[in-house]
Amino acid sequence: MLPALHGFTRFDEFQKSLNIAPNMLTRRLSALVDAGLLRRGRYSERPPRYEYILTEMGRDFRPVIVAMFAWGNKHFAPEGASVLLIDRKTRAKADPVLVDRKSGRPLNERDYVFAAGPAASERTRRRYAVINQKQFAAQQSSKPVRGSLQGRKRRASCYRSTIQGRNRRSDHGAAASG
Amino acid sequence: MLPALHGFTRFDEFQKSLNIAPNMLTRRLSALVDAGLLRRGRYSERPPRYEYILTEMGRDFRPVIVAMFAWGNKHFAPEGASVLLIDRKTRAKADPVLVDRKSGRPLNERDYVFAAGPAASERTRRRYAVINQKQFAAQQSSKPVRGSLQGRKRRASCYRSTIQGRNRRSDHGAAASG
Repeated sequence: MLPALHGFTRFDEFQKSLNIAPNMLTRRLSALVDAGLLRRGRYSERPPRYEYILTEMGRDFRPVIVAMFAWGNKHFAPEGASVLLIDRKTRAKADPVLVDRKSGRPLNERDYVFAAGPAASERTRRRYAVINQKQFAAQQSSKPVRGSLQGRKRRASCYRSTIQGRNRRSDHGAAASG
Repeated sequence: MLPALHGFTRFDEFQKSLNIAPNMLTRRLSALVDAGLLRRGRYSERPPRYEYILTEMGRDFRPVIVAMFAWGNKHFAPEGASVLLIDRKTRAKADPVLVDRKSGRPLNERDYVFAAGPAASERTRRRYAVINQKQFAAQQSSKPVRGSLQGRKRRASCYRSTIQGRNRRSDHGAAASG
């Protein structure tokens, strides 16, 4: 996936980037096409040549990869990161953090919990009813002693409006080549 | 991992949550302990009973899971999400987006690119030199026609200072139970 996220589309570009055997690369690319992350298109008739383009599903997988890199860089790279994200313009290193698009608040486990969604099965719904009850209770009981948390929440509210209203699709909707 | 991220620590809680055979669960928990995501502690001497606590590495894996859920909910759940993140206090549904902690800007592929880090091998460094050259060039050439991008960038700069200065550790540093 990584070479595709770098903007590469051609077999030889993938091969140069990954440095793996052609048959292995063919198998991997086919798996990604079957999974719906890449789509194959012919760019030359004679000889027949194919390119592999990220689908919307493939482009949307980028945050998962970025989150994994951030995790790996922190826990498996005592000598420093070998791959990171940089600002294309300023070249400043990015420090990835997951936030809620609307509120801008970091999705940490103190403020946000997993819960059953609208399409949850009856079993999932019951399970989360129990889990959430415990979590909501934990928040109630911990309130009086967590003065610093309140301070964080106040600070957080100041950028509630900033990310709000951004076009949802626009974050992943453009190719790397701009 | 999910039950641990829900705040569960005991074998029977994991089993109830996952609904899998005990030998399978034992194997999975051992694998997570070996991988460093959970640590095992005895909470009862007679009978011997163990609990499984998230390590820092395990807690830090949460954004990867959240990013995966967001991706899955979007692409594999036409009937709606079955599991999502909600604000513990307001119960509002979260819409996860990866941003740079310092600038608050979404880490989309138009603004942020992968690059070799300080500990990159010579090979990785050379590879990204080529990749980035192509990407920086793409940005240069696309500049005149991307007026809307400039507008986005101006808007983005208004919340540059908001996430800045937050304590890096604090986002994952507390257990779900508060």
